[in-house]
Amino acid sequence: MFKEVKTIAFDADDTLWNNETLFREAERKWAEVMKDYGSLEELSAILYKREAENMEALGFGAKPYLISVLETSVALAGDKLTGSMVGKIIAAGREIIDNPATPYEGVKEALEAIRAKKKYRMVMLTKGDLLDQEHKIARSGLGPLFDRIVITSNKSKKEYQDLCKEEGIAMEEFLMVGNSFKSDIAPVLELGGWGAYIPSQVIWVHEVVEEYPHPRLLKLASMSELPAYL
Amino acid sequence: MFKEVKTIAFDADDTLWNNETLFREAERKWAEVMKDYGSLEELSAILYKREAENMEALGFGAKPYLISVLETSVALAGDKLTGSMVGKIIAAGREIIDNPATPYEGVKEALEAIRAKKKYRMVMLTKGDLLDQEHKIARSGLGPLFDRIVITSNKSKKEYQDLCKEEGIAMEEFLMVGNSFKSDIAPVLELGGWGAYIPSQVIWVHEVVEEYPHPRLLKLASMSELPAYL
Repeated sequence: MFKEVKTIAFDADDTLWNNETLFREAERKWAEVMKDYGSLEELSAILYKREAENMEALGFGAKPYLISVLETSVALAGDKLTGSMVGKIIAAGREIIDNPATPYEGVKEALEAIRAKKKYRMVMLTKGDLLDQEHKIARSGLGPLFDRIVITSNKSKKEYQDLCKEEGIAMEEFLMVGNSFKSDIAPVLELGGWGAYIPSQVIWVHEVVEEYPHPRLLKLASMSELPAYL
Repeated sequence: MFKEVKTIAFDADDTLWNNETLFREAERKWAEVMKDYGSLEELSAILYKREAENMEALGFGAKPYLISVLETSVALAGDKLTGSMVGKIIAAGREIIDNPATPYEGVKEALEAIRAKKKYRMVMLTKGDLLDQEHKIARSGLGPLFDRIVITSNKSKKEYQDLCKEEGIAMEEFLMVGNSFKSDIAPVLELGGWGAYIPSQVIWVHEVVEEYPHPRLLKLASMSELPAYL
């Protein structure tokens, strides 16, 4: 299926290691602090709206999340928001920043197996805060398995076109591996590239789009299944 | 003086446009909110300590600053910190994020004069939050004057060595222009490169180091003076 492919790019958060569930856990702790103002579902819905409004100015990741959470808390609780509530909310947010970025089971072995084929350039392509992503890459220990690491503030068609240009390849020679159909898969398929889609169990609501089958798309249950197709 | 130079890199914040004074203004507003807990000087000293502790985990820029300010506020005021205080503190921090990044007087003209010489590759080299820096570059309108824009999470010898390697030049062919002796000038001089130091009126306390004269260093009062030396 992927015989034209020369460069494989891998998404990082929720593809190589766990990330989104840490946000869920922080949100659960936040909802506990804010329980007088709604259920987890109600509070989450209000927070998502604030995050969407802030996305252009603040971007993605734990720090924008924490600022959105605090703004939402002020808006909901007003002067009933106390210092100890704020302290608990910040502490929960800090746990996302300190993500150990432990690779999912089988990920390291799968990457090593793909490297051992010596047929592909391997790129880590991750969206988010520069320093947060650098820290997670270092903690994961996976950095040395990649020829190149690219950290962007967005993942749209433009970023994939730029990457292929820099790699000196046509889009038909590019395979993207990731858990987000919206960011990792759809733009690449639309440009004529290939996709290996490994859905994660939890996905950020802003990343949810309708999936569709495609002749250049492979859907896998885990990274461990990928080497056999390459 | 700079006749070997092939690539010139320019720092952005407080070299091309104002940035640090926005932090000072936010800090002044924060100290006003927190006036029961100390003078501006006392509060700033406590905040700087927190920022230094957080730097490794949170990095530089407006979002880490805001998180440090909020943590410091909780630590100082405890449950006397109210929602409306938090709201004011966040609003002050958001003004830094929305920095219009208007170029200093004469900067655009100086960059254009250097470009017109057609003798140098021109790089913008800026440290900080990826998205914040991208936004400021876009708002400044200076992006098209550069051959390349590099955003890093740090500015140590390693980053300068990497840049020169990518540019395919020796350190003696590299000139760095910036307002921070610590980040922009000292590491480059130590590696054998050239420095044009344009001190800003206000500097972040973490960037303050002792200056020294050096045969490969030029100190200027403003960017407008630079083209005459090139």
